[in-house]
Amino acid sequence: MAFVNENFFKLSPSYLFSEIAKRVSDFKTNNPDKADSVIRCGIGDVTEPLPAASIKALHKAVDEMAVRETFRGYGPEEGYEFLRHAVAENDYRSRNLSITDDEIFVSDGSKCDCGNILDILGKGNRIAIPDPVYPVYYDTNIMAGNEDIIFVNGTEDNGFVPEPPFEKVDVIYLCFPNNPTGAVATKEQLKSWVDYALKNKSLIIFDAAYGDYIRNPDIPRSIYEIEGAYQCAIETRSFSKSGGFTGLRCAFAVVPKALTAYSLDGEKSVSLHSVWKRRQGSKFNGVSYPVQRAAEALYSKEGQAEVRQLVDFYMNNAKIIAETLRKLGLPFWGGDNAPYIWTKTIGGKSSWDMFSFLLDNFGIVTTPGSGFGKMGEGYFRISAFNSLENIKEAAKRLSSL
Amino acid sequence: MAFVNENFFKLSPSYLFSEIAKRVSDFKTNNPDKADSVIRCGIGDVTEPLPAASIKALHKAVDEMAVRETFRGYGPEEGYEFLRHAVAENDYRSRNLSITDDEIFVSDGSKCDCGNILDILGKGNRIAIPDPVYPVYYDTNIMAGNEDIIFVNGTEDNGFVPEPPFEKVDVIYLCFPNNPTGAVATKEQLKSWVDYALKNKSLIIFDAAYGDYIRNPDIPRSIYEIEGAYQCAIETRSFSKSGGFTGLRCAFAVVPKALTAYSLDGEKSVSLHSVWKRRQGSKFNGVSYPVQRAAEALYSKEGQAEVRQLVDFYMNNAKIIAETLRKLGLPFWGGDNAPYIWTKTIGGKSSWDMFSFLLDNFGIVTTPGSGFGKMGEGYFRISAFNSLENIKEAAKRLSSL
Repeated sequence: MAFVNENFFKLSPSYLFSEIAKRVSDFKTNNPDKADSVIRCGIGDVTEPLPAASIKALHKAVDEMAVRETFRGYGPEEGYEFLRHAVAENDYRSRNLSITDDEIFVSDGSKCDCGNILDILGKGNRIAIPDPVYPVYYDTNIMAGNEDIIFVNGTEDNGFVPEPPFEKVDVIYLCFPNNPTGAVATKEQLKSWVDYALKNKSLIIFDAAYGDYIRNPDIPRSIYEIEGAYQCAIETRSFSKSGGFTGLRCAFAVVPKALTAYSLDGEKSVSLHSVWKRRQGSKFNGVSYPVQRAAEALYSKEGQAEVRQLVDFYMNNAKIIAETLRKLGLPFWGGDNAPYIWTKTIGGKSSWDMFSFLLDNFGIVTTPGSGFGKMGEGYFRISAFNSLENIKEAAKRLSSL
Repeated sequence: MAFVNENFFKLSPSYLFSEIAKRVSDFKTNNPDKADSVIRCGIGDVTEPLPAASIKALHKAVDEMAVRETFRGYGPEEGYEFLRHAVAENDYRSRNLSITDDEIFVSDGSKCDCGNILDILGKGNRIAIPDPVYPVYYDTNIMAGNEDIIFVNGTEDNGFVPEPPFEKVDVIYLCFPNNPTGAVATKEQLKSWVDYALKNKSLIIFDAAYGDYIRNPDIPRSIYEIEGAYQCAIETRSFSKSGGFTGLRCAFAVVPKALTAYSLDGEKSVSLHSVWKRRQGSKFNGVSYPVQRAAEALYSKEGQAEVRQLVDFYMNNAKIIAETLRKLGLPFWGGDNAPYIWTKTIGGKSSWDMFSFLLDNFGIVTTPGSGFGKMGEGYFRISAFNSLENIKEAAKRLSSL
């Protein structure tokens, strides 16, 4: 008799964004006249075309695949050296961070990395998850049977940057710039987490998917800017929001060789680099070759300029929304070093009530804050990923709030 | 203190194909004069360019990604409807197999699917794994902490098609056409497994990655050709060997809605379809859009002809090797409905000794049978995935064996 993983029964029945999609679809069915004018500021998905540098690289790689002499079959599970090198050189070494090419593991998405990383961690870890936060951290831990989970709360008081807890935890998720609040952590704030992790031999999983949206030079873009982080942190990053790769699928995880975890009795320390390498070798087969070339192209001179332009574009959208909210006198966070704006609901509405209110009356899709955890109740997230036209229209509609 | 998954310590230190790559690299370093003439018949990787239909579809999809109006961001985690439909229609419904579009889950590889499927299965399952077989089934079960594993043996007596065991098992891996032996299972043989699974409420994971190499119309290409299989089997298939997609990454798993697994107490039955959908929703973000278009194109009239041509090409290679072995009087299996030829070592050599013997004296890379399990000791695998030129040269060299 085949047994199911019963941990799945403990999950809420549907994933946040599927639920939003369903509600929007229902709204359109019930309001056919308004269906075409719905503006989606819900899911954080890019809308602008791929950078020309990537398009050129994709066409070139596809042509290579059409000719026997340049055709490529299986690539290295960890990614091609050309991309690992480009990443390590441009995102780390050029910023004086000592990351070697083979500490970069190319993958098909940060969501996948954040979930799959649990494969190499043992049972019995106490997990710290920020609240509010991207729901995947919690859900994948529940699926993996990790029940010892504590939440570290982001509140208005701490500017949605949680502080390390008093008790000892073994694995810590951090996400800055934060999804959903748009909060960024200062060097001092990150240092308090790294110091805590070193002291407690904890592992930090640092999700920096929105790192390219940081424009303030004093805000760290990588956890490795903090002394000691090589010994205690994995960093995941993605080309989804920098290069608009959500439909292409390419990301990477940095697993430093200095990073260790421990046997259950605490006596044996193990390099997580070699364990992750083994995991990827047996359960993954690398990222599509043309896609890796497209990612490499983002590091060319042309590509870098286009990434900058793309991020500027979405940040200008964020600015428009922020200004509208400011005029309305609504309290909000984020939007200056992040593509998300975190807003308090009006009149003490619940997050889902606010979601329905904005959809029904303004035709604007947002994300209810409660979908990101208990502490998100009473807030909602507005995403700046949209066309300028739609953002201007959304701002206009919101002005009459 | 972050705890590592100690199950990784139970794995053999390196993955089979990494070990082969290392030995070949060492050989080349020690024999620089012979380095260029080494012929790789080891790993089962395609060598011929992508079908023109896929190349055309890739270029078109890349162009769509360059324009705002046709740009695509996140796709559905389970794959685009256009591809799910093409798969269900062409691989199943046109052959009178009742598979709906939404029972197809598009993924980035069968290796990934075979490993990830364990996420949705509970602890406590007794697992049956054929021996010899593709090492990923065993390794991923060890990683997942499944220790109750029994082997069902492929031997010369059963033509390397194992029979169901006497004892009850909960999860069964089957792979036909088989990797590494090239054996195919008849309808009667598969029926004995399906009947066994239905009787014991077991789950069959049927790996049909090489299904397109079956040319004998009496041999089933899908487990669903067997009555009752919708209730007990997941089927994984790939475009890697049919369309030459090893470097592009696209595959799919079929999870019928009629398929159930059970709560640990055996009292509650659960549809695995919904659990797998939930798993993919939280830990996967879909396959690259241009790659899905390339896979769709394999089902066009032009694409189907090119797939046929590609498979014919590799099967002709297999025929050349088979004829050489036949002339030499060496016993072998496979090669008629599969791209692999499974050969007995000469003079009672161990598999790795035969590997070294063939590499050192003939410059031919094979795969040692012992890498596929204990029952593979004394055999080696020759892969037909190579250029015609190389296969002819390998056959010539082997003739002097």
